[in-house]
Amino acid sequence: MSDINKEILVVGLGSMGLGIAQSLLREGYKVYGQDKNSIQTDKFIKNGGVCTNIPFDNLEAVIVVVLNEKQTKEILFGDDGLVKKMKANSLIMVCTTVSPNFAKEMEALSNNENLLYLDAPISGGSKKSSEGKLTYMISGNKKAVEAARPILNATSEMIFEFGETVGSGSAMKAVNQMLAGIHIAAMAEAITFGISQGITPQKFLEVISKCAGTSWMLENRAPHIIENDYTPKSSINIWPKDLGIVLDIAKNSSFSAPLTAVALQQFISAAGSGLGNEDDAAVAKIYARNAGIELPFNTK
Amino acid sequence: MSDINKEILVVGLGSMGLGIAQSLLREGYKVYGQDKNSIQTDKFIKNGGVCTNIPFDNLEAVIVVVLNEKQTKEILFGDDGLVKKMKANSLIMVCTTVSPNFAKEMEALSNNENLLYLDAPISGGSKKSSEGKLTYMISGNKKAVEAARPILNATSEMIFEFGETVGSGSAMKAVNQMLAGIHIAAMAEAITFGISQGITPQKFLEVISKCAGTSWMLENRAPHIIENDYTPKSSINIWPKDLGIVLDIAKNSSFSAPLTAVALQQFISAAGSGLGNEDDAAVAKIYARNAGIELPFNTK
Repeated sequence: MSDINKEILVVGLGSMGLGIAQSLLREGYKVYGQDKNSIQTDKFIKNGGVCTNIPFDNLEAVIVVVLNEKQTKEILFGDDGLVKKMKANSLIMVCTTVSPNFAKEMEALSNNENLLYLDAPISGGSKKSSEGKLTYMISGNKKAVEAARPILNATSEMIFEFGETVGSGSAMKAVNQMLAGIHIAAMAEAITFGISQGITPQKFLEVISKCAGTSWMLENRAPHIIENDYTPKSSINIWPKDLGIVLDIAKNSSFSAPLTAVALQQFISAAGSGLGNEDDAAVAKIYARNAGIELPFNTK
Repeated sequence: MSDINKEILVVGLGSMGLGIAQSLLREGYKVYGQDKNSIQTDKFIKNGGVCTNIPFDNLEAVIVVVLNEKQTKEILFGDDGLVKKMKANSLIMVCTTVSPNFAKEMEALSNNENLLYLDAPISGGSKKSSEGKLTYMISGNKKAVEAARPILNATSEMIFEFGETVGSGSAMKAVNQMLAGIHIAAMAEAITFGISQGITPQKFLEVISKCAGTSWMLENRAPHIIENDYTPKSSINIWPKDLGIVLDIAKNSSFSAPLTAVALQQFISAAGSGLGNEDDAAVAKIYARNAGIELPFNTK
């Protein structure tokens, strides 16, 4: 039965995991899902997913898209861990943002259980995820890459391959997150500095997007501030975690990363101020408060 | 004689000023130039410019493109200052990066001498300047803007207008420089962090330029590092000056700008390490040295 070969479990149905699961459903896979949040599992079930009676010993692959290393390890190797339930030679594909060393540890433990392991961090945000247009940065041995190929193709528009040494994909993800985090905070610093000098956020975006000062993050996030819309497309809470991982990796390599460290402090201040579940553009609120200025509030 | 109305003096024939002067020559203006550096005046003369017998009382406009506020003020209002030599109602157009308050002071002093004043900071770099494709961020009263219009058109591809209050153009320039400086340092931090994790600068640029971590500066400057080419298109020395201006403006507005402050320190370290006259991408050398890693050196 070919169906048996197409059964996949996605653990973590947050905005990224749900997008991956739905992309796989569209491609005809039989997709199972797990998440503690019933709002997310309900969405998944409504789209044809299944959250009960998971046939663990038939699964071709388990895709893990959770918050951090701790959750990832618990899911795979905890008391009720998945590795003991999965069939030999099936695939574990971890999309969680983790450190390269953690990925190496997970691969070794997985291989001990006769399971394939792919380091597969993702980039692109929830919209791209739901459209099956993620970017993957993968590393792992050839068998793992081969086993993952149909899943990767079904859920992405771009796949960067970093060879057989697991952890290289996560290293690249860390580099990208370093830049993305700094650029969001820099956008917030500059748009509020502009307000302090009489430049409206609209004028800021209009001019800067055509100048050398622009960035992908600036053009993506500044509109949230202009529209006073902090519905979380990607939340403040992502950044203390991701930039924390980046700085851990850096410290372990004796690499000094002062801009990353400062950007992290701004996101921690935002989380500490109760903005953790707002869109990450809300880091601008910290700058505005510290300068006694106002962000746009009368639109939308 | 229509020629009389087309005589213009450019003070400061560095890469930006020389580009402006040459663009005006191409448009048929009679262009005079001043610079202490004979290498630059020789280039200008070779292109048809004139550096002697400047007919100050016939000049339609003086364009000032020098290093900082001090030089700008000395040129205009020093013991041998130009304002005393210029004819009434002619134009002073200052492209130097200055603070909004300085621009306001210069306008008031110029108006006292019956001269028009335009706050006209520029962006785009030496290549765009030489091609007549600069970006201007202008502010000044209508008469000044009107008088400057043909000059602006001859030397730019984009003109952003910020109204009659002089200083608004300089405020926008400060916002752009804040972002540009942070983004160059962030590129340097990330490309060297990548090296520390086994990611080559080539792979870094290939991947990041297609991801959310990209910026205009990253795509423009990372190739200098990959090619080991630190010929100054824009030098390290620009940044202690420009980010210093940004932070002065911020401090005067009680605006806290922590990322800008950290980026400034990296450029100061680069200048202090003897890299002041190298391309600003050389700030990556500070990161590399501090982490005990090597930048590409065997190419080009």
